[in-house]
Amino acid sequence: MDNKALFRLSYGVFMLSTKAGDKINGCITDTCIQVANTPTRVAISLINTNYTCSLLKESGLFCLSVLDEAATFDIISHWGLQSGRNVDKFDGMNLPMDPNGIPYLSSSTCAVISCKVVEQVDLGTHTLFIAEVLDAKVTSDRNPLLYADYQKRIKPDSQTQKTQRKIKGWKCRICGYIYEGPDIPKDFLCPLCGHTREDFEPVYED
Amino acid sequence: MDNKALFRLSYGVFMLSTKAGDKINGCITDTCIQVANTPTRVAISLINTNYTCSLLKESGLFCLSVLDEAATFDIISHWGLQSGRNVDKFDGMNLPMDPNGIPYLSSSTCAVISCKVVEQVDLGTHTLFIAEVLDAKVTSDRNPLLYADYQKRIKPDSQTQKTQRKIKGWKCRICGYIYEGPDIPKDFLCPLCGHTREDFEPVYED
Repeated sequence: MDNKALFRLSYGVFMLSTKAGDKINGCITDTCIQVANTPTRVAISLINTNYTCSLLKESGLFCLSVLDEAATFDIISHWGLQSGRNVDKFDGMNLPMDPNGIPYLSSSTCAVISCKVVEQVDLGTHTLFIAEVLDAKVTSDRNPLLYADYQKRIKPDSQTQKTQRKIKGWKCRICGYIYEGPDIPKDFLCPLCGHTREDFEPVYED
Repeated sequence: MDNKALFRLSYGVFMLSTKAGDKINGCITDTCIQVANTPTRVAISLINTNYTCSLLKESGLFCLSVLDEAATFDIISHWGLQSGRNVDKFDGMNLPMDPNGIPYLSSSTCAVISCKVVEQVDLGTHTLFIAEVLDAKVTSDRNPLLYADYQKRIKPDSQTQKTQRKIKGWKCRICGYIYEGPDIPKDFLCPLCGHTREDFEPVYED
């Protein structure tokens, strides 16, 4: 089986935020599809080791900020490349709230979708959440950001950086796991989330 | 709720084929996401009134041909805009078979993914199929076709045709339901699949 074939599926890029009691977090995900009408329902999949996933299981409510072409690496890095277990990602952000009181991104997004989970399917590494759409609005006329465009256009070119700085490890973009050392085996699988070598990015020496 | 916000989710375009006993069919769908690893699993959603959906419930096996940028309106029209209840879409096609004996498209596709359904979730209008990937291969270096590109670039421009020919009805692109008459109400919902006016395309007089 050639795993690269799976990379030919197309995805958007979203900031998913949720709030359970006084705990709040947001993460970057690329899996969201509409799966039914009357009522409108969507499905998203989150990795079980992800802090937002744990909070969502508790809260059952989330807001999806659909990133658009204006999104920068800083935005994706802030929400996607650090864990809410260590950092309060909302600190000093002063974001607007959706009707459920969940903050969302009002800039660099083309739509905001508020959802209530109606079913959870445990898939081992991930949980699939099926959710009813409670509210949705368009926030810009720009095109949605595609995951493929993020890879091509927004993600810093690790080849350029490689020549300038020394690599001290590799970080899993999906769950944040760090592989210590400059040489990561080609067939390495993340011990936390099972993603392949392609999902790791270099960590440079300061 | 502004339904247009849901159009900001990004999708690819796929031909999904399945075979149950001597019955065979294929349809166009735009919903497929990878939802888990180890084993690799995907999720797709099909409308319950769709003939392929009925066959898939019976067979539990499907093959996904991931359409690429070379795909034409003829391909999408053949697989997506007629029902396998009335036409044998595979007649005279002589397509290659995947390891499960299910035919797939070898041209205008960038990947082929063979799957076995492991769970079905009934969502009223639709069924969500969660499936394990049994086999996958890359079939071209072209980019996958995006549903947004299909709408912009491949779908015939109904505005141009409108000025030349008289509209006699409106056809639901999702399930094929025909609304008789030139003027379809703006808030019309398809009585078969529940999709909105935006999913209807004009049917012209000959």
